[in-house]
Amino acid sequence: MPLIVQKYGGTSVGTIERIQAVADKVIETKKQGNQVIVVVSAMSGETNRLVGLADHLSKAPVPRELDVLLSTGEQVTIALLSIALTEKGYPAISYTGGQVHIRTDNQHNKARIIDIEKARVVRDIEEGKIVVIAGFQGIDEDGNITTLGRGGSDTTAVAMAAALDADECRIYTDVDGVYTADPRIVEGARRMDSITYEEMLEMASLGSKVLQIRSVEFARKYNVNLRVLSSFEHGPGTLITDEDETMEQALISGIAHNRDEAKLTIVGVPDKPGIASQILGPIANANIEVDMIVQNVGLDNTTDFTFTVNRNDYEKALSILKKTADKIGAKDVSGDNKIVKISVVGVGMRSHAGIASTMFKALADEGINIQMISTSEIKVSVVVAEKYLELGVRILHSAFGLEENGNVEEAG
Amino acid sequence: MPLIVQKYGGTSVGTIERIQAVADKVIETKKQGNQVIVVVSAMSGETNRLVGLADHLSKAPVPRELDVLLSTGEQVTIALLSIALTEKGYPAISYTGGQVHIRTDNQHNKARIIDIEKARVVRDIEEGKIVVIAGFQGIDEDGNITTLGRGGSDTTAVAMAAALDADECRIYTDVDGVYTADPRIVEGARRMDSITYEEMLEMASLGSKVLQIRSVEFARKYNVNLRVLSSFEHGPGTLITDEDETMEQALISGIAHNRDEAKLTIVGVPDKPGIASQILGPIANANIEVDMIVQNVGLDNTTDFTFTVNRNDYEKALSILKKTADKIGAKDVSGDNKIVKISVVGVGMRSHAGIASTMFKALADEGINIQMISTSEIKVSVVVAEKYLELGVRILHSAFGLEENGNVEEAG
Repeated sequence: MPLIVQKYGGTSVGTIERIQAVADKVIETKKQGNQVIVVVSAMSGETNRLVGLADHLSKAPVPRELDVLLSTGEQVTIALLSIALTEKGYPAISYTGGQVHIRTDNQHNKARIIDIEKARVVRDIEEGKIVVIAGFQGIDEDGNITTLGRGGSDTTAVAMAAALDADECRIYTDVDGVYTADPRIVEGARRMDSITYEEMLEMASLGSKVLQIRSVEFARKYNVNLRVLSSFEHGPGTLITDEDETMEQALISGIAHNRDEAKLTIVGVPDKPGIASQILGPIANANIEVDMIVQNVGLDNTTDFTFTVNRNDYEKALSILKKTADKIGAKDVSGDNKIVKISVVGVGMRSHAGIASTMFKALADEGINIQMISTSEIKVSVVVAEKYLELGVRILHSAFGLEENGNVEEAG
Repeated sequence: MPLIVQKYGGTSVGTIERIQAVADKVIETKKQGNQVIVVVSAMSGETNRLVGLADHLSKAPVPRELDVLLSTGEQVTIALLSIALTEKGYPAISYTGGQVHIRTDNQHNKARIIDIEKARVVRDIEEGKIVVIAGFQGIDEDGNITTLGRGGSDTTAVAMAAALDADECRIYTDVDGVYTADPRIVEGARRMDSITYEEMLEMASLGSKVLQIRSVEFARKYNVNLRVLSSFEHGPGTLITDEDETMEQALISGIAHNRDEAKLTIVGVPDKPGIASQILGPIANANIEVDMIVQNVGLDNTTDFTFTVNRNDYEKALSILKKTADKIGAKDVSGDNKIVKISVVGVGMRSHAGIASTMFKALADEGINIQMISTSEIKVSVVVAEKYLELGVRILHSAFGLEENGNVEEAG
């Protein structure tokens, strides 16, 4: 009998009525002849309510105790969903992260899963029960409750699917799949039937926030078939899987974008070894993550150094960079938080030249100036002024033939 | 260093401000040179909120899942109190019932504690930490979460005190101790400095709802010094302990009463063996608890049979009794739910005659008719019409010399 892991997020279980609807969806899957394990998040709003209580008591609540607090959110949901399922005639049994021994390291608030004890769950599903598991949480080797950080329920679902060798791990969200571009920007954006883990990782890290990156990494590592689909509508969603399965052979899978970036530049830096770490060290020490980095060497033995950070960290990064500039004798510091990153993503580009040039030409034809470029094996990203976001995404979607009516096999 | 277990109920931790106040009280005890373990309930209203959610999904939620749900209530409180204590500079660590291995039987919603693994808590308190434990909950031998039933947090506190051989177990409530009678009825009612376990058990079972009966039984069994005191005021409260300690040598400790009773009578029952079980069997099968039972044998080989039940069960019991009357050929059934039980309680009466007659005379002098009588080693209870409640309690309080200004050693 096929084994399906389903994961429902906070919005999907946000009210008693929605929990009933989730129960119906779970039962439908069970009736189709599957064994079912369900992973759920806290009801929407609950985690914020709990954090709010803690914030009244301390500006920096002890991480261990914050995890004890937050883990109650999913515990409420697993109990309610199990009650609903049993009431509808489908016996269900719930487990907290601790009860099912989702063992993690001891990094409270951002723990990583080490292993899962599957014996108990296997026994339950073989007895015909539906197993309901609290997402987002685990237990360290000393029995302390840990949480995986926000969005960690996706990771729990994938880890359960991996541990139990499930046939599919279905992540129910508020979108009905992964699109070739944001449908709110590109009218002809098309839901993909399938996409590779690597492409999904690039899409996710580039701002297509359908899945948590860690869960996709986990799925790739353990070869779990991951499917993104809608909690609220019927439909096949998008399967995220290995390259060699029934994958579309498109060169480019989609156009991703990210509005959350800001750009900082330090110019006239004396060009000597170790200068990059002198510039980025203080930024990293302030817990600011750096995304793209570009360095050009000028003629006068000085260099210009540009990097991007999350827009929320822009002011802080700018002030750190100004101090660094004084210290290392740089000429000037500038910044821009009205930029966006647009990327073309696709495993097909590995073996095809010309993707970058097609991309740059399409942008140039519309007079869009490229401020930074960064590439990987399966993506090319550019930074452009924010005002060009929609135009840029649309013309690239079109330039690579991603519209609703079929793929262009060779677009480069 | 003395070890004190403190227990705070739902009202005491009902808001963020009250949790702060509890933290201050705990710290005060710690500063006085004690090791401290704190047991807490769910914030007031939380358990009802959770039950309400479950009720929307099922009229009879699966008991196992209801426990998973309800146990989150205390888990929130232990985290918040630990955060508050640590913020105030007193490192604290929280444990759920499962984490501290409060092992119970598997009777969900009304589990009984079997044992407690104390190693971890001992290590923590020896390291100087304040240990905060979720009341009301435990774990069965299969790792399922159980709850002890409402009020079970008192039992958790006493069990922790017993397991760790604590010097005292302090139960903080909304009253400042145990009184010789209800102070709302008797102006001269006096807070007792100490009382025996047995007297407290009788007082509790007779409607002085200061402590949960189970916790007093537990304290007696393991010889735990139990102190009832106020969460909101300073004061020594009342110590509940062994008879041979610094006990007042009063004959009578106090006057208890219970308004929750109703009386049922079946008359003209053919008097033959097994008749009592034929009458009470159907009542017990309907999960109705019977308190007092009186049977008189008449002259014509029939008997009258009277018993009391909780007032909430009155209608149900009456309808069952009517069916039984038809079946066994009894003459009539009557009932009265406007009755109260008044009791005099005291270990001193064991060795003294005359308590009952003093009691009956005092009531007769005021024209109060006694409807039923029941006695034990340390109490005499009577059932009277509800309208006599206040008068009855007051004259007995006075007849046994329990007023504020000293005890009368011999009152019988």
